[in-house]
Amino acid sequence: MRDAYHEELDALTGRLVEMTRLVRSAISRATTALLDADLQLAESVISRDEEVNRLFAEVEASVFELMVRQQPVAIDLRMIITALRMGTDLERMGDLAEHVAKVARLRHPESAIPADMRPTILEMGQIAENIVSKAGSCIARRDVESALELEHDDDAMDRLHRKLFREILGKDWKHGLEPAIDITLIGRYYERYADHAVRIARDVVYLVTGSRPS
Amino acid sequence: MRDAYHEELDALTGRLVEMTRLVRSAISRATTALLDADLQLAESVISRDEEVNRLFAEVEASVFELMVRQQPVAIDLRMIITALRMGTDLERMGDLAEHVAKVARLRHPESAIPADMRPTILEMGQIAENIVSKAGSCIARRDVESALELEHDDDAMDRLHRKLFREILGKDWKHGLEPAIDITLIGRYYERYADHAVRIARDVVYLVTGSRPS
Repeated sequence: MRDAYHEELDALTGRLVEMTRLVRSAISRATTALLDADLQLAESVISRDEEVNRLFAEVEASVFELMVRQQPVAIDLRMIITALRMGTDLERMGDLAEHVAKVARLRHPESAIPADMRPTILEMGQIAENIVSKAGSCIARRDVESALELEHDDDAMDRLHRKLFREILGKDWKHGLEPAIDITLIGRYYERYADHAVRIARDVVYLVTGSRPS
Repeated sequence: MRDAYHEELDALTGRLVEMTRLVRSAISRATTALLDADLQLAESVISRDEEVNRLFAEVEASVFELMVRQQPVAIDLRMIITALRMGTDLERMGDLAEHVAKVARLRHPESAIPADMRPTILEMGQIAENIVSKAGSCIARRDVESALELEHDDDAMDRLHRKLFREILGKDWKHGLEPAIDITLIGRYYERYADHAVRIARDVVYLVTGSRPS
């Protein structure tokens, strides 16, 4: 049987994995809300971000408790320090999903995204979901190999992000300024969401190996 | 005389204050580079972001050392935990200044900002400088009162950010898509820069009082 200290460390990991699940669900619903102009779904993303924030507060409290009551060293100390960083990143990913949902709400009953741009945004949403799922497994299994692979998914996100700009600034753009601005911001939200997932993966590498990937 | 432990804690504070100085200089130069289409200045912001990253690596190493060698409690433990968070925010502020400089470089020899929009961007740059200076003093002096005031400066930034959108989407906008996209992104960079400074100020409040401002 594990002692109370290791049970608390496991619970900390559990909370981080649960945060990845919540922010995955948030970006998934935000993408659908955006593409389908679904106001109710957008509202659900916005109101439920509170759950992510609450979990992060629990992570912070647990980190503080573990520091005060124990004298963690080596991998346990790295776990506690990276938990704070991962929690910060996940909390921000929740905010970014909320930002996407707010654009959906602002343009309702229209969709903020013109029909010909929807496949690209859908793909960005799918990469975001995929990348955060993988980050969750990396945390749960302390899986360095998968963590290093996450950079490839982020490359795909960056390619789509550049594609958005090419389309907006291309000579065939016919949707005017407002959709261009919305898509600029939304593209940035998805790209940042993926960046935070990559940071989490890098923290898993640091957690396990004691050094950061170059 | 102070012991080695407290000297190391003071050095940690010193590194954070030095980071605020560097990212203040970075956003100041980035704003000038952007408004004056000054390529050399833009390049200096981009190449010197490495200094901010190096200082952050020192902050992280120092936090780890302090944790392993000491058993910090109460305010010292909060100092060490918030130092990590503040360092993360400051490192990101350096990146955001670099993003502004990269837009300046991309549009050189033109200025990315049409002449009639420059006063607003200049004002955002000045608020950004002002807010990070104050954040630096708050860290150095553990000054809760000034930390709480920082939110007002951030309100001014948010107002300017909303003003940018009103101008871009107003009927008198005559600069076309590319400047609109550039300004959308740049506005977001300044706004995020100020948000990170506010987070630092809130961490100072937590550091001193043990609880976060509501």
